[in-house]
Amino acid sequence: MTETYSVDRRNKVRVGNRADYDRTTVQAILDAALIAHVGFVVDGRPVVIPMIHGRDGETVYVHGAKATRLIKQLAKGVPACLEVTLADGIVVGRSAFHSSMNYRSVVVHGTARKVEDADEHARALEIVTEHILPGRWAEVRPMLDKEVKATGVIAIEIEAASAKVRAGEPIDEESDYDTPVWGGVVPLRTTYGAPEGDSRLLPGVEVPASVAALTGKAG
Amino acid sequence: MTETYSVDRRNKVRVGNRADYDRTTVQAILDAALIAHVGFVVDGRPVVIPMIHGRDGETVYVHGAKATRLIKQLAKGVPACLEVTLADGIVVGRSAFHSSMNYRSVVVHGTARKVEDADEHARALEIVTEHILPGRWAEVRPMLDKEVKATGVIAIEIEAASAKVRAGEPIDEESDYDTPVWGGVVPLRTTYGAPEGDSRLLPGVEVPASVAALTGKAG
Repeated sequence: MTETYSVDRRNKVRVGNRADYDRTTVQAILDAALIAHVGFVVDGRPVVIPMIHGRDGETVYVHGAKATRLIKQLAKGVPACLEVTLADGIVVGRSAFHSSMNYRSVVVHGTARKVEDADEHARALEIVTEHILPGRWAEVRPMLDKEVKATGVIAIEIEAASAKVRAGEPIDEESDYDTPVWGGVVPLRTTYGAPEGDSRLLPGVEVPASVAALTGKAG
Repeated sequence: MTETYSVDRRNKVRVGNRADYDRTTVQAILDAALIAHVGFVVDGRPVVIPMIHGRDGETVYVHGAKATRLIKQLAKGVPACLEVTLADGIVVGRSAFHSSMNYRSVVVHGTARKVEDADEHARALEIVTEHILPGRWAEVRPMLDKEVKATGVIAIEIEAASAKVRAGEPIDEESDYDTPVWGGVVPLRTTYGAPEGDSRLLPGVEVPASVAALTGKAG
C-alpha cells in the first residue's frame, strides 16, 4: 500500500496549497474527530447527517438505529462522502479578506456497504465505542441480542481521500503590515470537563478508568 | 411567517423524539456554530465540504475563492444541504448501546444561488466576517476591488430545516441501573484561548475589542 491516497476527480483539491493526500495525516485527523458529517444522495438531492464514527484501517464505520434514513439509504450500497473538521483557531487578519480559520479537515469518498457479517458487525460496534471513549468496551456488559439487532452498521471503504490543514499566522496583504491593525490567532480549544455522575448512580461507584482518562484532555 | 419550519420528505426526522422544527431553535444553533458542512451532488456523487457561514434571516451565506469546486458547483443553482453540529458532551451509558453524545445539530435544505448583486455580495461578506468575529468588520479596512472579485458568495435560502438536540443523562436499560457501573456525562467545552499576536505586529498595537471579547468565551 502506498503512503498517499491517489488523486482523482473526487478528491483533488482545486485551490490553494493546503491539500495533503498522506495516509498518516488523513487517518490521524479522522481519528481525532468526534463527529463525522456523512453525505449521500436521496432523490437527486444531497443530505448531510452528523454521525459518530470509528476507523479500522481503510474502513470507516458509522452506526445508528436501523430505521434511520441514513442507515436505510446507505445500506443500498450507494456512494457516500464522509467529512470531519477540527477547528483550531480564528485567524485574525488585518483585513476581512485575509481573515480565516485554522483547521484540520478530511474528506473521504467511498461506497457505503451494509455490514451483514456478525463478527464484523460486533467488531465495528466496538471500534465506534472505543473511538468515542477508549477503554469503555471492556468496562461494560456485552451487547444484548436485541441491541445488536436494532443497530445498523455501515462501512465506507476509503476509495479516495484528502486532508486540508491550515495552521499558523494570517498571511496578510503586504501593505497592511505597515498599518497599526492587530493580526494574529485566537486559539480554539475543545476540552473535556469533570465527569458528572447521573441521578441514578449507585453509592460508592467510582468514575471508571476510561472516563477518568478524558478529564482535562483535548477533545 | 410561522414559528416552525414545515415538515416534508427532506427534513422529516424519522427516528426518536429529538426533532425540533422551531425557527428560533434552528437559527440559534446555526448562529452558534463556527463551521458548516455543505453537501452537494457532483456527477451523481455526494460531496461534503466544511465552510465558514453566516445567516441573514432565512438565508445562509457561504463564501470562498471563486475557483473552488464548491463555489463553481453551487453557482449553478443546484440543491444544497447545510449541516452544523455542536458537540456538548459524551454520554456514558452503563452499556455500549446506551452510550451516546449530547449535541445540537441542524440540517438545512435549500437551493444554492450565486450572489451577483454587488450590495448583497458586500453585505454577505460582512455577515460571514461578523459571524466568526463580531465587531471585526468595522475594525478593518474596506475590501479591495480585487478581493471582492476573487470571492464567490453563495446564498442558500432555508426551504426546509430541522434541529436535533440531545441533552442530559444517559437513558439506560432499566436493569442496568442496579449494577455497579458508572453512568453520567463528560461535558465537552470549546473555548477561545488568549490571543497570539503574529510575528509582524507593529509595536504598541493592542488587541482589538472584537478579539478581546472572545477570550474565555465558549466557542
